[in-house]
Formats: sequence, C-alpha cells, structure tokens
Amino acid sequence: MSSSSSSSQNTLKVGIVGFGTFGQFLASTMLKQGHTITVTSRTDYSQLCNQLGIPFFRDALPFLEADNDVILICTSIISLSDVLKSLPLHCLTRRTLFVDVLSVKEHPRNLLLQVLAEEMDVLCTHPMFGPESGKNGWKDLSFMYDKVRVRDEVTCSSFLSIFESEGCRMMEMSCEEHDKLAAKSQFVTHAIGRILVEIGIESTSINTKSFETLVKLKENVSNSSFDLFSGLFIHNRFAKQELMNLEQGFEMVKQKLLKMNEEQNLSKSNNAMNGY
Amino acid sequence: MSSSSSSSQNTLKVGIVGFGTFGQFLASTMLKQGHTITVTSRTDYSQLCNQLGIPFFRDALPFLEADNDVILICTSIISLSDVLKSLPLHCLTRRTLFVDVLSVKEHPRNLLLQVLAEEMDVLCTHPMFGPESGKNGWKDLSFMYDKVRVRDEVTCSSFLSIFESEGCRMMEMSCEEHDKLAAKSQFVTHAIGRILVEIGIESTSINTKSFETLVKLKENVSNSSFDLFSGLFIHNRFAKQELMNLEQGFEMVKQKLLKMNEEQNLSKSNNAMNGY
Ligand SMILES: NC(=O)c1ccc[n+]([C@@H]2O[C@H](COP(=O)([O-])OP(=O)(O)OC[C@H]3O[C@@H](n4cnc5c(N)ncnc54)[C@H](OP(=O)(O)O)[C@@H]3O)[C@@H](O)[C@H]2O)c1
Ligand SMILES: NC(=O)c1ccc[n+]([C@@H]2O[C@H](COP(=O)([O-])OP(=O)(O)OC[C@H]3O[C@@H](n4cnc5c(N)ncnc54)[C@H](OP(=O)(O)O)[C@@H]3O)[C@@H](O)[C@H]2O)c1
Repeated sequence: MSSSSSSSQNTLKVGIVGFGTFGQFLASTMLKQGHTITVTSRTDYSQLCNQLGIPFFRDALPFLEADNDVILICTSIISLSDVLKSLPLHCLTRRTLFVDVLSVKEHPRNLLLQVLAEEMDVLCTHPMFGPESGKNGWKDLSFMYDKVRVRDEVTCSSFLSIFESEGCRMMEMSCEEHDKLAAKSQFVTHAIGRILVEIGIESTSINTKSFETLVKLKENVSNSSFDLFSGLFIHNRFAKQELMNLEQGFEMVKQKLLKMNEEQNLSKSNNAMNGY
Repeated sequence: MSSSSSSSQNTLKVGIVGFGTFGQFLASTMLKQGHTITVTSRTDYSQLCNQLGIPFFRDALPFLEADNDVILICTSIISLSDVLKSLPLHCLTRRTLFVDVLSVKEHPRNLLLQVLAEEMDVLCTHPMFGPESGKNGWKDLSFMYDKVRVRDEVTCSSFLSIFESEGCRMMEMSCEEHDKLAAKSQFVTHAIGRILVEIGIESTSINTKSFETLVKLKENVSNSSFDLFSGLFIHNRFAKQELMNLEQGFEMVKQKLLKMNEEQNLSKSNNAMNGY
C-alpha cells in the first residue's frame, strides 16, 4: 500500500502552501469532503484558519513536519521560485505527493523536479476555473493534470478524486501541451480582460448581450491579481507569440477600418464631383 | 385620427427596404404579429418572399406606391446614402412613418431629414439584438428609439408596440446619446470580436468559462457582415476615439507585462550573482 497515513483510503492530509484567493477556494471544498488541512502562507491567516478550524503555521518547518500526504502549492506563479527556495524541504522524511495548481505548467514542473528529492512524487495540475466560474459547483469544469513523477498511485488518485467526485472533466495532458493551449485561450482571455480594465468599459442602458459578456469578463479579471496575469505571460513560453498575434490582429482590424473609411470618403467626393 | 389605412389600429402595413439578415429577422416577428409586409431590396428575394406569402418589388416605384403606414429601412449603414438616393421618394403622396434600424443613429437621422419631404415622419431606432441574441424571443432585450419628427403618434406607437409587446426594454434617447454609448459598448465589442476572428481563436479541451464567452463572441461577429462593423466605425463620430482607446489600452497592458518581465529577469540575475 501507499505511504498514506490517512485512516480512510480517500481522506487525505493536505498541507497548503499559499492561502490566497485560490488556496482558500480549494480548501473549502476539500474540508467539505472531509480532508484534513494545514496551512502555511506569507501573510498571517491564523485568524481565518482558526475560524475554519484548521492549523496555520507561520513557520514552514513544523508545517512540513506535520506528516502530510499531499503538499498543495497554491502560491502565485511569479513567487513560486522564491517560495520553494524558502521551504526547508530536506526536513521531509517520508514520500509526499507535491501538487501544484499554477495556471502555467512547464515552469512549476521544472522547478519542482529541480528542488525536490528523487523520492518525492510530483503531480502538476490546473483547475480551469476559479471562485467566480466555480461558485455554483465544479460540475463539467475542466481539470488538467500531468502525472509528472508518481509512484504512489493510491495517494495520487485519492487527490484526483477530490475533483473527479465534484464532476470535473478530468483532462490528462503534458505540461507542454497545456501551456500551448492555455496561451491561446486563457492568456488571450486575460489580456483582453486587462485591456477592458484599462479602457474602463462600463455597463450602459443599451447593452447588447455580447457587450454584457465583456463587462463580466472585465469584472472577473479585475478580481484576479495582476501577479496572476503577469505569471501567465512571463512563465508560459508560448504567451509572447500570442501577445504578438493579438497586436497584429488589432493592426489588421485597424487597417481594414481605415481602408473602408478612405474608400467611403473617396466615393463621397466622386459623387460630389459627378454632381450627385 | 392618423393617416393609417390599416383596418385595425394595431395592424400596420410595413414596407421593408433591405431584406438581408436583419430585415428578414424583424419581418418574421412582424408577420407573426399579423402585420402586412412588402419588401424591396438590391438582391432578388422574390422566391423567399413567395414562400413567406409577401410581395417582393424589384422596382422601388410600385413599392412606394403600395400605400404603407411605415417604411422600415434595414439596409447596411454604409449603403444607406445610396439607397435613399435611389428611391423615388417624391412619389409618396401620403404621410408615411420612416423608421430605420441602423446600428448608428446620427447618420440615418441626418440623411432622412435631408432627403425626406417635411410631411414625412421620422423615427430612428436601434434594436440592441440580432438573430443570435434574439433567437429565443426579445424579452428584456433593449430597444432604443428617438422620435426625431413624429406628428402621427398613433402610427408611431403602433410601430413601437411591435417591440414593446415582445417584452423589449424600451429606451428613449437622443441619436447623439445613443452613438456615444454605442461607441463605448457595441463598437468595442465588435472590434474585439474582429480581432479574435483575425487571430483565429478556437475552442480547446481546457477552455475556461471566460474563454468560452470569447469563442462565442468570435462566432457571433463572424456571422455579422464586415459592412456592419465598418459602418459602426465610419458613421459613428465617437468610434474613432474608442479605437484609439483600445490601442492605448493594449499598449498599456503590453508595457506592464514587459516591465514585470524585466523585473523578474533582473531579480533572477541578482539572485544568481548572490550565489542563490
Ligand atoms: N484564481 C483563480 O481563478 C485560479 C485558478 C486556477 C489556478 N490558479 C492559480 O492559483 C495560484 C493562486 O492564485 P490566486 O488567485 O490566489 O492569486 P495569485 O496572486 O496568483 O497568488 C496569491 C498567492 O500567492 C502568494 N504569494 C504571492 N507573492 C508571494 C511572495 N512573494 N512570497 C510568498 N507568497 C506569495 C500569496 O500569499 P499570501 O496570501 O500569504 O500573501 C497567495 O497565497 C496561482 O498560481 C494561480 O495561477 C488560480
Ligand atoms: N444584424 C444585427 O444583429 C443587427 C442588429 C440591429 C441593427 N442592425 C442593422 O440592420 C441593418 C441590416 O443589418 P444586416 O445584419 O442585415 O447586415 P448589413 O450587412 O449591415 O446590411 C445588409 C443589408 O444591406 C443591403 N445592402 C448592402 N449594400 C447595399 C447596396 N450597396 N445597395 C443596396 N442595398 C445594400 C443588403 O441588401 P441585399 O440583401 O438586397 O443585398 C441587406 O439588405 C444594418 O443597418 C445594421 O446596422 C443589425
């Protein structure tokens, strides 16, 4: 059997690193499912954790010594490298499944393989939803994962069950494939949302349905951190190309409009000359 | 009473000029409501009109002589000027209500006031929906209108009832106010949709909900004509500013990303120098 110390096969001891928006969001479902949670984070969440009835460790050492089945990394993309370096990982004495939920995948995979001892398991995941899209449950929302280095299959599948049992669409794919697709979809979405934030679109009294979806996109993006957005760009090697595509796409649209405008002006002045 | 020749107070004789996507879409609801429709258009729609049991006139003269209560203009924005010039409007012998449904409003208002005889009434409108958003009925969808020159209130309110009775949110506002708001909402929406068409976004196996709304926006915009989009730009004097805002918004987002990227690279190389 696995090295799991949990009493029931499906109940896991999960240590969360990074208890911001998304860490809290995942914790609430895991608690509902009966898993045991401990937390460490940069910010002091001891009061919130007290309310939730879960231990908060300011210090990473006792956190790592708490005998977790899973260490769940929920920090921002751009802080991951520093956060991993700050953990006294050599103190881990048992095989532990390291899972990350970062919105880019090659970057955490590479860092985790670099800093973790060989006996640690690594599962890279990306739940394709957040507090807004997942507020009424996770049914039919996609959950991407890559079993980067998994020997303890029981713990790994217990962890995946957290999402499976909520009805997520489980998508196994490589970190590379994820980053390619996510650059073309999620990064582009956030980029457009950020542009809408910049120009400050606002609901009007004559909204079309399509415009309303853009207002909602703008609001969702405003509620996510700029760290998240810049992480999508900096640590996904496919994102730069998509930013260039977006710029070229804008330029094409602009040129087409200006050309049409010129043609109309020309035909207007021709008509005028023809004594129209 | 009004000059309406219709037997029932609420049943109108409507002559449609321009029987493209949107003209047909409006006609189907008007027919359902029991109004009498006649059609003229650049393209020969005699077969379609035959199926619908309504007369199609290739020639504008008999069309105008058909004694309509309302002439409903559903041509593209950019062709309006030529279409109006091609109509033998001097043949109209009775007061008629001219209504347009163009997605810009100052432009048709100015043209209609210019070409129509003083005794003709003018109602400028913009149904803020189309075949896609209105496919399951028009309830709670906005309908903007401006009574630019209305003496025959009975015919005008009978016409407005077409939309009111379907549950539209009736928004009375000036053409100028409409164009200001529509540049900030509908034009921006179409511009982003067109950019998404240019870069060719496609549904992936790991769509987020927000990305799915962009895929839908792209599809909706692909289904509308480029004439419509260019009309939104060329004939709304507030649109150019919005295109500039969009460009600046993009530039701001890009600069923020590049700055964050640089900072991360800097701190990485500092860490390297500190022997991290
Ligand atoms: N939000 C979503 O919808 C969503 C969906 C899927 C995946 N994700 C991923 O989940 C992770 C968390 O996302 P988020 O929405 O909570 O926002 P975020 O801004 O990406 O990350 C916030 C978290 O990062 C920690 N953090 C930031 N800078 C730090 C630093 N210098 N040192 C130590 N910790 C630092 C914060 O710790 P403190 O709170 O202690 O300050 C907090 O826990 C990200 O990797 C994101 O890509 C998010
Ligand atoms: N589609 C929508 O969702 C929507 C919503 C609200 C308002 N509108 C407005 O409704 C009007 C029609 O829109 P649409 O979606 O049907 O597409 P459109 O491309 O804007 O207009 C197509 C109509 O314009 C006519 N037309 C185009 N060029 C012409 C020319 N050179 N001479 C004569 N007629 C010409 C076409 O006639 P033929 O078909 O005979 O070729 C067709 O009836 C537009 O003013 C638009 O702004 C559209």
